[in-house]
Amino acid sequence: MQLTRFTDFGLRMLMYLSKHDRATPITIAEIAGQFDVPHNHLIKVANRLGKLGLVKALRGRNGGLVLAIAPEIIRLGDTLRGLEGDVPLVNCEDPPCALGGRCLLTGALRAGLDAFYACMNEYTLADVSTGGTEVAIVTMHRNYLANLGVASHH
Amino acid sequence: MQLTRFTDFGLRMLMYLSKHDRATPITIAEIAGQFDVPHNHLIKVANRLGKLGLVKALRGRNGGLVLAIAPEIIRLGDTLRGLEGDVPLVNCEDPPCALGGRCLLTGALRAGLDAFYACMNEYTLADVSTGGTEVAIVTMHRNYLANLGVASHH
Repeated sequence: MQLTRFTDFGLRMLMYLSKHDRATPITIAEIAGQFDVPHNHLIKVANRLGKLGLVKALRGRNGGLVLAIAPEIIRLGDTLRGLEGDVPLVNCEDPPCALGGRCLLTGALRAGLDAFYACMNEYTLADVSTGGTEVAIVTMHRNYLANLGVASHH
Repeated sequence: MQLTRFTDFGLRMLMYLSKHDRATPITIAEIAGQFDVPHNHLIKVANRLGKLGLVKALRGRNGGLVLAIAPEIIRLGDTLRGLEGDVPLVNCEDPPCALGGRCLLTGALRAGLDAFYACMNEYTLADVSTGGTEVAIVTMHRNYLANLGVASHH
């Protein structure tokens, strides 16, 4: 049982953005480079996060992505559910299960999934973006700017 | 986020076996046929369930698999954890994450996973193998025997 890569990349994007405010929009190219993930994939992730109301794209010469709301009010359970979508924990259709439609397991697994999201809602994006995580992200961004030949403002 | 097919097949096997006692061992071939899953895959699943102490193989002419303990004491959380193994919810190594080892998200996800298993432990195998599920399994087994040309004892 693993989160989809789509969700995984969404979380990395949110954590990275959480350390930068509206004055420092971050390009998808920067995030793609930092995490070594495909640029096209991240565009889809950014679109989903935009639809969830978590991320905004600022246009213009120094445009890029910013968080749409403060990391202190971004709950991880709701965020994960929005990224994962309403997909059940077992795929009863592949191969089609002979118990399909008469299986009590489905309800039990749905309760377990709800418990997972409820627990994750006890954490905000801010909670998981402090300490060593914060230091790492700030350093990554500084190194990115240095490699661009741009003076860092940090 | 989905359970592995390995786990999915393990659950189906346990549910199927839960409706038959030691007097009616069930062959892997029967389960493979009923759920239309590869026989070789189910052998590995049965081995894992055997190591977990949930399933036993009875030898001999009418041999096959039986539950090693009563379905009323098989808790789904422990069972799922045993089938899934100790795999984290995100793969920090593929691609290797720049935050690896400094990421607070990992701990939060581990807490969420624990909450999931704790909730699933509120259910036993017996809980999810009653009602329509039980009727379906009993019917499947009866049809299987009929197709073999063997008189059903149900």
